[in-house]
Amino acid sequence: MRTEVSSFGEFRLIDHLTRNNETMNAGTLLSVGDDAAVIDQFGRQCVVSTDMLVEGIHFDLTYTPLKHLGYKAVAVNLSDIFAMMAVPTHITVSIAVSNKVSVEALEELYEGIYAACERYNVDLIGGDTTSSRSGLVISITAIGEVAPDKYVTRSGAQANDLICVSGELGGAYLGLQLLEREKKIFLENPGVQPDLQQQAYLIGRILKPEPRADVAEWLKENDIVPTSMIDVSDGLSSELIHLCNKSNTGCVLHEEKIPAHDDARAMAMQFGLSITTCALNGGEDYELLFTISQNDYDKIKEYAHVTVIGYMTAPEQGLQLVTPSGGKHTLTAQGWNSFDTH
Amino acid sequence: MRTEVSSFGEFRLIDHLTRNNETMNAGTLLSVGDDAAVIDQFGRQCVVSTDMLVEGIHFDLTYTPLKHLGYKAVAVNLSDIFAMMAVPTHITVSIAVSNKVSVEALEELYEGIYAACERYNVDLIGGDTTSSRSGLVISITAIGEVAPDKYVTRSGAQANDLICVSGELGGAYLGLQLLEREKKIFLENPGVQPDLQQQAYLIGRILKPEPRADVAEWLKENDIVPTSMIDVSDGLSSELIHLCNKSNTGCVLHEEKIPAHDDARAMAMQFGLSITTCALNGGEDYELLFTISQNDYDKIKEYAHVTVIGYMTAPEQGLQLVTPSGGKHTLTAQGWNSFDTH
Repeated sequence: MRTEVSSFGEFRLIDHLTRNNETMNAGTLLSVGDDAAVIDQFGRQCVVSTDMLVEGIHFDLTYTPLKHLGYKAVAVNLSDIFAMMAVPTHITVSIAVSNKVSVEALEELYEGIYAACERYNVDLIGGDTTSSRSGLVISITAIGEVAPDKYVTRSGAQANDLICVSGELGGAYLGLQLLEREKKIFLENPGVQPDLQQQAYLIGRILKPEPRADVAEWLKENDIVPTSMIDVSDGLSSELIHLCNKSNTGCVLHEEKIPAHDDARAMAMQFGLSITTCALNGGEDYELLFTISQNDYDKIKEYAHVTVIGYMTAPEQGLQLVTPSGGKHTLTAQGWNSFDTH
Repeated sequence: MRTEVSSFGEFRLIDHLTRNNETMNAGTLLSVGDDAAVIDQFGRQCVVSTDMLVEGIHFDLTYTPLKHLGYKAVAVNLSDIFAMMAVPTHITVSIAVSNKVSVEALEELYEGIYAACERYNVDLIGGDTTSSRSGLVISITAIGEVAPDKYVTRSGAQANDLICVSGELGGAYLGLQLLEREKKIFLENPGVQPDLQQQAYLIGRILKPEPRADVAEWLKENDIVPTSMIDVSDGLSSELIHLCNKSNTGCVLHEEKIPAHDDARAMAMQFGLSITTCALNGGEDYELLFTISQNDYDKIKEYAHVTVIGYMTAPEQGLQLVTPSGGKHTLTAQGWNSFDTH
């Protein structure tokens, strides 16, 4: 029998491969299937997450400066730790690289890695550097800490909880489209240098995302304990489906509430794309998507960095996107899948 | 300026890239530069190590069954944890794989991963599965625990300490040579199926190494605290040089004491290789190399799994290999380097 990897998709594949995973250590509090795992370390708790970035799949060195790539590789891992409401403390970095790459290029990559470590007060404590026959591969494991049982999983949301998202969505996807367009133009007309200065916001969203440490911190300071949380790496739709599936809820998502930056709206228009589609299916925004009890609404409503975009429902009500005109659509996961054969 | 990666070699490269690494968290007890890092977790200590295996560099799928590969990928990471005298508890596994690989093939790989987890009582707690444009890449991070300050680094050896090694050396390298030879024969004469049953020991050494949990455990039970320790992944010579450099010692290594299996000696003869060269420069044996105080000699001398092969000296005496006839050679690191352009 032969089943194609592409027929599974990334999430179902990892679910499938780890379906018989039984944990043996009593200290393993949360295993595969959330933003990070949680292990009990002598009374306090340690949160662990890992991510792999592959050249040609997750990044294109044509328009990704190595320093930015190093920074982003760390940032996306830390985002998983913040999405557990934990604080990252340490990372390990493994890199496979063609021996055609210069040491200076690797230094640039590490400059970005160190810049992110410094910004988020994280120590680089280990790594492996090895040769690769083809492209660059970066694998990072992030470790964080959290007070006992204060971590937030994907599975605690209940009907009537409010669905909140930090920042603005869709920008990273539009930034990527912009870079891809400029790359194409450049390859066809090597004389034309792209001028992307006007698009600093969108380019920044794709090349230099920042994990929302600030939002996680604000929630703690204001004694708001999210009932569930995930970071938006694969698009709002896919992440919200994760929360609903893990929490066994349905949801109502109000299209007109989905936050987007003006530059993103304008660029979506230019590309003839719906900004809602960019937010739902684009991915790489690295914002925090979470649910809170309605009791916390008064605390959060004035906070500029978070928008309430809907609410959880009973599971039998399904996953609904409500348009401004009152139309109802079922949310489907069209998020990014690295195994797609397009 | 452009410096070729291959001009650096693997160790110097990671040393170079992490040379300005300053740790910020008080809990970071040991960072880059040992078998694993050590972080303080609320009074007890957590040991972290990471390794990346790349197809075409670290393994050849022509003769590596995927189940064995999964097992080995875990085993070599656990070996680093045991080499700190810590006990592994958790791993994360990230895999990049071509979408031409079948789900069944990945299942085999995970079978091996789980078999190693079960054998060593370790929980798989997280992972990432992503697409790769080319070969298979496996990145594993292992986490272990150790009682406060009971971890053993590479840097504690002193002059007159005895140099000990577990098991036997050179076998993995000879197993690899054997597989490479049979592959070549097979490619030239596809009709000839290799019969490797007679060579189960050597093939086992390269395809299914076991980390020396037993030896680490025995040392603890017998109250022997090694003054320094490292696992033999790149050849005895290279590992002993690490211990001497980090501990600021010289050493005397007695060639005739280097332990080797009869099958390894016979195969070395067949290949016209010196068994000493295979042990010194071959690598992948995953035995434990460590130093102990002379006071512990009586305890260890009857233990069948450990051989005393020399002793540490003052640094100015250099790193000496003494042949059976009394000849003296300086040890040099010719261990395996994935960046070599051969």
